[in-house]
Amino acid sequence: MRDFLPADKARRERVLAVIRERYRAHGFDEIETPVVEDYERLHAGIGGDNEKLAFNLLRRGLDADAIRAAADDPAALSDLGLRYDLTVPLARFYASHRSELPAVFRAVQIAPVWRAERPQKGRYRQFVQCDIDIIGDGSSRAEAELITATLDTLDALGLDGATVRINDRRALDWMLASFGFSDDEKPGVLITIDKLDKIGAEGVVAELAERGATASAVDAFGAFLRRPQTLEYRPYGEGQIRKALPEGAPDDVVAHLVALGEAVAAARPGGEAGGVPLVFDPFLVRGMGYYTGTIYEIAHPSVPYSLGGGGRYDGMIGRFLGQEVPAVGFSIGFERLVDLVAAAEPDAAPAVVLVHDRDLPLGELLALKSAVVAGGARVRLEQRPKNLKGLLERAAADGYTSFATVSAGAVADGLEFKPLS
Amino acid sequence: MRDFLPADKARRERVLAVIRERYRAHGFDEIETPVVEDYERLHAGIGGDNEKLAFNLLRRGLDADAIRAAADDPAALSDLGLRYDLTVPLARFYASHRSELPAVFRAVQIAPVWRAERPQKGRYRQFVQCDIDIIGDGSSRAEAELITATLDTLDALGLDGATVRINDRRALDWMLASFGFSDDEKPGVLITIDKLDKIGAEGVVAELAERGATASAVDAFGAFLRRPQTLEYRPYGEGQIRKALPEGAPDDVVAHLVALGEAVAAARPGGEAGGVPLVFDPFLVRGMGYYTGTIYEIAHPSVPYSLGGGGRYDGMIGRFLGQEVPAVGFSIGFERLVDLVAAAEPDAAPAVVLVHDRDLPLGELLALKSAVVAGGARVRLEQRPKNLKGLLERAAADGYTSFATVSAGAVADGLEFKPLS
Repeated sequence: MRDFLPADKARRERVLAVIRERYRAHGFDEIETPVVEDYERLHAGIGGDNEKLAFNLLRRGLDADAIRAAADDPAALSDLGLRYDLTVPLARFYASHRSELPAVFRAVQIAPVWRAERPQKGRYRQFVQCDIDIIGDGSSRAEAELITATLDTLDALGLDGATVRINDRRALDWMLASFGFSDDEKPGVLITIDKLDKIGAEGVVAELAERGATASAVDAFGAFLRRPQTLEYRPYGEGQIRKALPEGAPDDVVAHLVALGEAVAAARPGGEAGGVPLVFDPFLVRGMGYYTGTIYEIAHPSVPYSLGGGGRYDGMIGRFLGQEVPAVGFSIGFERLVDLVAAAEPDAAPAVVLVHDRDLPLGELLALKSAVVAGGARVRLEQRPKNLKGLLERAAADGYTSFATVSAGAVADGLEFKPLS
Repeated sequence: MRDFLPADKARRERVLAVIRERYRAHGFDEIETPVVEDYERLHAGIGGDNEKLAFNLLRRGLDADAIRAAADDPAALSDLGLRYDLTVPLARFYASHRSELPAVFRAVQIAPVWRAERPQKGRYRQFVQCDIDIIGDGSSRAEAELITATLDTLDALGLDGATVRINDRRALDWMLASFGFSDDEKPGVLITIDKLDKIGAEGVVAELAERGATASAVDAFGAFLRRPQTLEYRPYGEGQIRKALPEGAPDDVVAHLVALGEAVAAARPGGEAGGVPLVFDPFLVRGMGYYTGTIYEIAHPSVPYSLGGGGRYDGMIGRFLGQEVPAVGFSIGFERLVDLVAAAEPDAAPAVVLVHDRDLPLGELLALKSAVVAGGARVRLEQRPKNLKGLLERAAADGYTSFATVSAGAVADGLEFKPLS
């Protein structure tokens, strides 16, 4: 977990303001949930592997007997935990407040989550996620809005050139069945396929054999993976989607993917097929077990990892609400994104340092500061030190742009500002 | 702990933006620390009563033996906790990063804290504090800057008319000694004096007698409290400060309080003594044990409770840094404040609903939305429902201002917008 010093914090807030403003323009309403959720909700099996990484709160008021009794049932030590994602809290939020929300609810959440990850470069135990979700719309419109809004946000951050890899869990499911994998085998097979980028086609085949998956299915899948056209699936369109899948892919899933691509293309500046930033990837898996339809990940040419992703999870809201409601989301990993955004421009407002002598009466000094603040500037007071140069360099590094020396009798209108750099 | 729905969340963010912008204009730099701090730091005796209200995290990886062993030492169950204030984290932050910060560091922190308070009206277990602190300046300049910046922020929120009650721990300390209370008795006496507003002068005298405080000191203090002029200490100025204290108050403390009042008066619009929003209150205590000098609380005529407060705490940074550094802070209780701010104005940008038929091609719909978003509007898509009136009312409640009906072949320039209300 990290401290953020002023320059970093200001930069983060500027990037967050752009994200917030763009998502808002696209019709997403911001909500906030508490950092802490009930232990049972966090450990209900929805959060996948993240549940194991949850930070749990120590239950208050435990006496020695209760602690001893918990040796055989450690879950009794905790009744609350820190959220590890923004999806579980959103589902709980929606179930609690449905009657106060529009029938199609477009939510944006910009907030920290916590996971007890092993510390490593680029991974933090507290990190900010930016999630948009549409609840109550089972159509492709929802997915197209999420993807369009996210691409527009990246454009606004100067990160154009991003592409969205897209797949559909129904296509994956059908494909695995067509090779002959049983339903029981599928979750394990998906875990292996998820490593295709890292271990390659032969690595996937070897790992599936090791897992003891049905041999004939592994052979059929291996032959399919080795086809030259399988991993060449650009540009996006019906021909390419059909070519990248085994023969006989279900028409409705293919039609859904084609319509989604056409809608995103139409919504993008330029709007022509060649400019579509979508890539169909029949082997995109996304880790979470709750996805039921379209899934996607966003990539940028400047980095080897995904900047975010999401998908349709029509089954989850029902677990909290007792009534099925379709839902789909897109989550941006803010920590990965913020480092890519070019150093944002400094404030437009002037930022000035008033250097004063020790014996300047305090009332006069404060009155001057107030007058300059009222004039629209950001103002730092500094008593004149021995090393004025060092002080001014420090102020310049902190984003101040000019300074004036203040003596007794000075008036705000008469200050002579000199540039700091 | 609470969920915030879109209207509430938007309102909170607007108020926070004003606070952030005003404090920044006054030269405060925003920082952020992790929500979680080390257990030992949170329980080092600095946080006063709040330490008992801390939420602690359950240590990860405890086995049955370790849990059993912790029955006699519950602290072994936790190595981390949620912060209960922003002052302890700031002191730790400053000690960690001093070399990267200006010699006089003006910090603003706007962030949630957690306390396991018994749920009651207006008290929450997660709530946002807005703290400004100046570290490295032991002079009255720091206190005057904090008070001026906070009053300016309240003005910007439309909460003019606030007053600042002010006292000095050194004056309290001297006053109690002058009545004959021993040093050992003083902390307990301060706890009782802190209740003066609630229990009145006779209540204070009775409670002190009950506590078994030195009888002659209680008598002397009682006589002082009953003087007519003791509780009539307006307007602020040297005469009033001397009149509100026993005779012989130390000159340096009185001079400090006078200079501070003059500086704040000079910095305020109008700037005349009659407009000074300071009140000298010789019985203001502030609960925390770490205060060493000036202390203050902010009050507003519309509410019976304090909106925030703070003071000088010159001893705390040294506990983390091993070297004394003066420090003074002002904390606004955001949850109390936000309810007082008049309903903020709606966005200047247009917010429109596009009502479309089910059979409008998705690409055409998304292209229209993108064009209207690019034109500067906030846009919500809605498929035409049976009950259009209900849908439009819901959108109006969510801050949307106009709508247009969209059919095949529509172009953004040709949309006819009608007002929603």
